[in-house]
Amino acid sequence: MFLDEVFAKKDEFLNKEITVHGWIRNHRAQKEFGFLDFSDGTTMEHLQIVYDKDTADFSHLQSLRVGSSIQVTGVLVKSEGKGQDVELKAKEVQLLGDCPEDYPLQPKKHTREFLRTIGYLRPRANLFQAVFRVRSVAAQAIHEYFQSHGYVYFHAPLITASDCEGAGEMFQVTTLPIEELKGKVDYKKDFFGKRTSLTVSGQLQAETFATAFSKVYTFGPTFRAENSNTKTHASEFWMIEPEIAFCDLEGLMDIEEEMLKFVVSYVLEHCPKEMEFFDKFVEKGLLDKLHKLIDSKFTRVTHEEVITILKNSKEKFEYTPEYGEDIQKEHEKYITEYFQGPVFITDWPKDIKAFYMKQNEDGKTVRAVDLEVPGAGELMGGSQREEDMDKLICRMDELHMDKEELDWYINLRKYGTCVHSGFGMGFERLLIYLTGVENIRDVIPYPRVPGSCEF
Amino acid sequence: MFLDEVFAKKDEFLNKEITVHGWIRNHRAQKEFGFLDFSDGTTMEHLQIVYDKDTADFSHLQSLRVGSSIQVTGVLVKSEGKGQDVELKAKEVQLLGDCPEDYPLQPKKHTREFLRTIGYLRPRANLFQAVFRVRSVAAQAIHEYFQSHGYVYFHAPLITASDCEGAGEMFQVTTLPIEELKGKVDYKKDFFGKRTSLTVSGQLQAETFATAFSKVYTFGPTFRAENSNTKTHASEFWMIEPEIAFCDLEGLMDIEEEMLKFVVSYVLEHCPKEMEFFDKFVEKGLLDKLHKLIDSKFTRVTHEEVITILKNSKEKFEYTPEYGEDIQKEHEKYITEYFQGPVFITDWPKDIKAFYMKQNEDGKTVRAVDLEVPGAGELMGGSQREEDMDKLICRMDELHMDKEELDWYINLRKYGTCVHSGFGMGFERLLIYLTGVENIRDVIPYPRVPGSCEF
Repeated sequence: MFLDEVFAKKDEFLNKEITVHGWIRNHRAQKEFGFLDFSDGTTMEHLQIVYDKDTADFSHLQSLRVGSSIQVTGVLVKSEGKGQDVELKAKEVQLLGDCPEDYPLQPKKHTREFLRTIGYLRPRANLFQAVFRVRSVAAQAIHEYFQSHGYVYFHAPLITASDCEGAGEMFQVTTLPIEELKGKVDYKKDFFGKRTSLTVSGQLQAETFATAFSKVYTFGPTFRAENSNTKTHASEFWMIEPEIAFCDLEGLMDIEEEMLKFVVSYVLEHCPKEMEFFDKFVEKGLLDKLHKLIDSKFTRVTHEEVITILKNSKEKFEYTPEYGEDIQKEHEKYITEYFQGPVFITDWPKDIKAFYMKQNEDGKTVRAVDLEVPGAGELMGGSQREEDMDKLICRMDELHMDKEELDWYINLRKYGTCVHSGFGMGFERLLIYLTGVENIRDVIPYPRVPGSCEF
Repeated sequence: MFLDEVFAKKDEFLNKEITVHGWIRNHRAQKEFGFLDFSDGTTMEHLQIVYDKDTADFSHLQSLRVGSSIQVTGVLVKSEGKGQDVELKAKEVQLLGDCPEDYPLQPKKHTREFLRTIGYLRPRANLFQAVFRVRSVAAQAIHEYFQSHGYVYFHAPLITASDCEGAGEMFQVTTLPIEELKGKVDYKKDFFGKRTSLTVSGQLQAETFATAFSKVYTFGPTFRAENSNTKTHASEFWMIEPEIAFCDLEGLMDIEEEMLKFVVSYVLEHCPKEMEFFDKFVEKGLLDKLHKLIDSKFTRVTHEEVITILKNSKEKFEYTPEYGEDIQKEHEKYITEYFQGPVFITDWPKDIKAFYMKQNEDGKTVRAVDLEVPGAGELMGGSQREEDMDKLICRMDELHMDKEELDWYINLRKYGTCVHSGFGMGFERLLIYLTGVENIRDVIPYPRVPGSCEF
């Protein structure tokens, strides 16, 4: 039996004999008895196993080592110890898989840097038990939000022949024998008969599905061959990209706010022990921060208003805020503090935003929105899309883009075009916010970053 | 308002005024009135819109074209027409986005081959409305099954430096300027400092998580650079790979059977209109086939027993069945007919199976299992994994494998090893079975196959 079942039905199993399998996380062997800190990883909570001279093979049990896998048969009893209400009084403990003394994951404090070097063992450590369960539950929260609102889950293609968004930052995908190439490459001989790369976004394809199903979302991996070694960059990460037809920017912000609150509430409800762990050991005040988010009303201001607020502030910024320019991390921080909560910043200068964003009548700004969240920075980025074919083509020409390659995308504006909007959220950025864990390498099972592709 | 809400609350909206947005799927304009077949893609069911001379701008409405997007305000009324119980009596119809006469998706029969050439429009066709909604709902069914049973959803890495399973059939991933290489490749200069490829399976990494969380599953893309142009091969597809600690082959088969029945039931319950559509227009008898699966008890036989049955049959096979050899499609078909339902075939000859499968004591077979389903062939493949380090190493040596590259995988057997098992299911293979659609190109939004990487 797995521990999730034992704990879920502990009243039912109380004073009954059960058999469990799992690993020894810690062991305190004393003269007359011993305690095993035992877990199978199905719950954050461990089970304490007590054995004594009545337990079969007592002297052998005393030598059991941390990391070993065991099978235990015993009676579930009320515990008088601190920190648990039940424990297992062992009748028989059977060693299934021994673990040598040099097991790298001994029960003591390890640095996260060290744990990254034993990436295949670190999910057994408490911190990563919590992180990767929250990762799993948050993923489910996202699916439940969109599925219960009638969205179609769309699997965007990962191998792509288009590079409109990621020029210079894409991984090439090939089956050509690159060791044998002599400076001349015939892409007709490559697997797909053309040059292909890994996608940086499924948005453009998602738009084609939004004009068929109205409400769609992607949730899948994306790739960025950016050579930056920061705490928030990974080369392979998961993105959520919803796209909604007949929805303008105001409607989009409603959805972003509702979805984020749903996901945070869902994780708090389904992972109480994990979230307590983070609050206690990773980010003090985490639970407060998250509850505050759920209760807050997100502010909506334009980029221009933000710049005015920044300019009027007495704050000394490293970068002077300017109309028509991007805003910096220090500005984001000031603004969320100014409004005491999450802020939607809308209507950005068009020159710093993507070609597909809907142009405002002022000729200078686009209907883009970034969501700034206290303690997380920019958590989502979205926009209303340009649904006017002439304006879209004009903008693509200004940016010297290849229109032929994207004829299908342009054609969506020809065949029954409609107002539509969408946003993107980096899943790992959400997890960093939810867990308080700061480095993206610690919220991805096997992170891929420049110079490192281990396991 | 979206149509899913209108239909879900049609009693509430009856005789009330509502406003909807969507596309004209068909138009019958008559002298005194007209009918618009209208959909926003949120339901398989369309809404009939009736307009007449009382509707604003009547004469203009008569010229509305198929594919155009419109906004309609009107009163939801009981319909006297066949095939629907409500319709919308239009007060005002506003053209949002026109659609030219040469719109490729006219309301007539198109071949699936033609629809593939307009992949960005085909999700608007009835068949693909049904296929991609079922794809979405089936994905959710899989998540709900595993999440409700306490599994951790594990995102396996897609870029990998290991090629133990896919030698020769992997896509290379690189940022090297391959046009400029002169026959000598220094992988230290590649993005990750080594040669990397796209994964063919997340199983080995999933095993590391199973020895931490006991119950885990992957659900993500995998890649195969196999140059085969068949109806069932794609170069990019989605796989589900559960992995369970303290679970032997019998337990694994229990899970496979329970999961498959759950997913089929879930899709039947959540997509009744779509499934009726497939039963009527794509595969006659589909619903019967699926209900039969849910009610059946899956048979369990060994590979050896299967060969004996095949040999004793009076059937004339193209390939003679032999002990110690693989079985062919014709054999699979015979066996599922013989047992009148799904069949688990276990204990396969070790030489035709992977290195990590648990070796039986006979020295000839491994604890592998393939699930053969009537009308689908092999739907899942799994095994108990070799948990004995010496036996695993011995097998790897026999196969001349690089043990250093997989030291972490081997080490799972060193640090508290345990009996564990897992299986893989190709998501598209499941969809082909669920929908009756035969070609894998028609169940993937944007299929990638040899020589083709469009959109």
